[in-house]
Amino acid sequence: MSVDRLIESIRRKKNPTVLGLDPQPEHVPPEMMRKAIEEQGETLAALASAYESFNRIMINALSDLVPAVKLQSACYEMLGAEGIRVFQSTIAMAREQGLYVIADAKRGDIGSTSSAYSAAFLGRVAVGSKTLTVFDADALTVNPYLGSDNLAPFIKDCKEYDKMLFILCKTSNPSSSEVQELVVGDRPLYRVIAEQVSRAGQNLRGDSGYLQLGIVAGATQPGAMKTLRARHPELFFLVPGYGAQGGKAEDIAYAFGKYGLGAIVNNSRGITCAYQKTGGDPADAARQAAVAMRDDLCSYITIV
Amino acid sequence: MSVDRLIESIRRKKNPTVLGLDPQPEHVPPEMMRKAIEEQGETLAALASAYESFNRIMINALSDLVPAVKLQSACYEMLGAEGIRVFQSTIAMAREQGLYVIADAKRGDIGSTSSAYSAAFLGRVAVGSKTLTVFDADALTVNPYLGSDNLAPFIKDCKEYDKMLFILCKTSNPSSSEVQELVVGDRPLYRVIAEQVSRAGQNLRGDSGYLQLGIVAGATQPGAMKTLRARHPELFFLVPGYGAQGGKAEDIAYAFGKYGLGAIVNNSRGITCAYQKTGGDPADAARQAAVAMRDDLCSYITIV
Repeated sequence: MSVDRLIESIRRKKNPTVLGLDPQPEHVPPEMMRKAIEEQGETLAALASAYESFNRIMINALSDLVPAVKLQSACYEMLGAEGIRVFQSTIAMAREQGLYVIADAKRGDIGSTSSAYSAAFLGRVAVGSKTLTVFDADALTVNPYLGSDNLAPFIKDCKEYDKMLFILCKTSNPSSSEVQELVVGDRPLYRVIAEQVSRAGQNLRGDSGYLQLGIVAGATQPGAMKTLRARHPELFFLVPGYGAQGGKAEDIAYAFGKYGLGAIVNNSRGITCAYQKTGGDPADAARQAAVAMRDDLCSYITIV
Repeated sequence: MSVDRLIESIRRKKNPTVLGLDPQPEHVPPEMMRKAIEEQGETLAALASAYESFNRIMINALSDLVPAVKLQSACYEMLGAEGIRVFQSTIAMAREQGLYVIADAKRGDIGSTSSAYSAAFLGRVAVGSKTLTVFDADALTVNPYLGSDNLAPFIKDCKEYDKMLFILCKTSNPSSSEVQELVVGDRPLYRVIAEQVSRAGQNLRGDSGYLQLGIVAGATQPGAMKTLRARHPELFFLVPGYGAQGGKAEDIAYAFGKYGLGAIVNNSRGITCAYQKTGGDPADAARQAAVAMRDDLCSYITIV
């Protein structure tokens, strides 16, 4: 199952790092941007082409080193249709190189609308006699605010197409406490959400024992991660917030379970923009940053 | 300000109805679909072209009757880049005809990512020396689960570009109670969210007295609507769930405040697919359905 493939890849590469492909205009090397503008003018299409070239370099540089990539949908939507084309082509590039692809879109809506989102990111769309994939990611992030009939269509596609979900539980941003730590009965809201996710995913358990429904638990929230890990050995964690947002490997160690597994840790700018700090080639700088991150994480856990 | 322009349009048309442009493959008249497939094959592009033609018919048929349209982003994302092109062109068509455009995308993320979403839906994107609009809607729906630093970039663009937000509070789906009615202290979560929205929007008040930050309150939740309206005369409501989802005009009446204002009520399939029930021309059937809905709503309120 999907979660087992992810774990297998983490084991093989001895690395729980997710490469975040979240391009912003200021991330792209200036000469790459200049070339794109020369060819396509000062257009959204030019910026999208530059993102595509930059993502290709990153994927080629890191595909033997990291098990997974995460694409932040907002960065691509920001460029309209041209950006979505590159979102699509980047997912295809990453999957061709055997990388596990997480679409970080944080969708959530009423059931009929979630069906449409799910068809786009995980499932299929019928046109006439054909059934087509659109983005075809391996996993999608989902927002829990609308409850179980939001989750249902995504879960259906997880079963049908062997995909995975990460539901927002405790996010990495400073104001995450304002809603997620509101006390419901005897516990913070994020714990109620984790329980709902666990119940919803009971019938989608991989050979590894982990459910196909995981949660997002921010690296900046070590207390929450510790609590969640202790109570939910069955949930796989997607951990954003390492590096630029301040999350530290020693805290993130709490997110892992048996065999140094059970979590993947995202880093975007810290890897893709490493060249801006070190100078030199973006691919080399990204590799060095990714190796350093792997070694940092693996000094606290042992993947077996 | 944006909220005042919306109210002015509701007053002029004596109608609080929002036309929902949420196309699905089965909504499009078969002959329109056949023509698109003949020209472009069984492709996502063909389906997108059919949506574009269908949306054009709906906008042309109803622009003198309704003050606003709402586009469900999922329906367009389902067709990848081609769908996003039509999302963009439909917004432009609607704005050209003087309609207020709500992008129903329910976005919500950490601050830096919300900035990217906000740039796409409400703001501007810089490429070289140019500053470009992407979707340029009048208003956007936002998910509150990540707290105030999610809202901040959207609020910044509301100020800078005179836009409006509708934050999910109590949604229309059956399972909305699972999270939104969890009791926090002495009140359900959705009331805490409404209070957070009200505080966040204090400095963005229109001449009408309504804030530029409104909330989503489902037509299927009359109790919640009544409570929210009593406690928050300053919040404008976007009310989904009329018709197909079961919301009734007599219940929706609770959403309105002074002068029969303070709320807009969405209807998608009930208008755009009316022709499937009545037979005949889609534009005529949509007009009849929209007039019937306006009269139904206005039998419980008086817009002055």
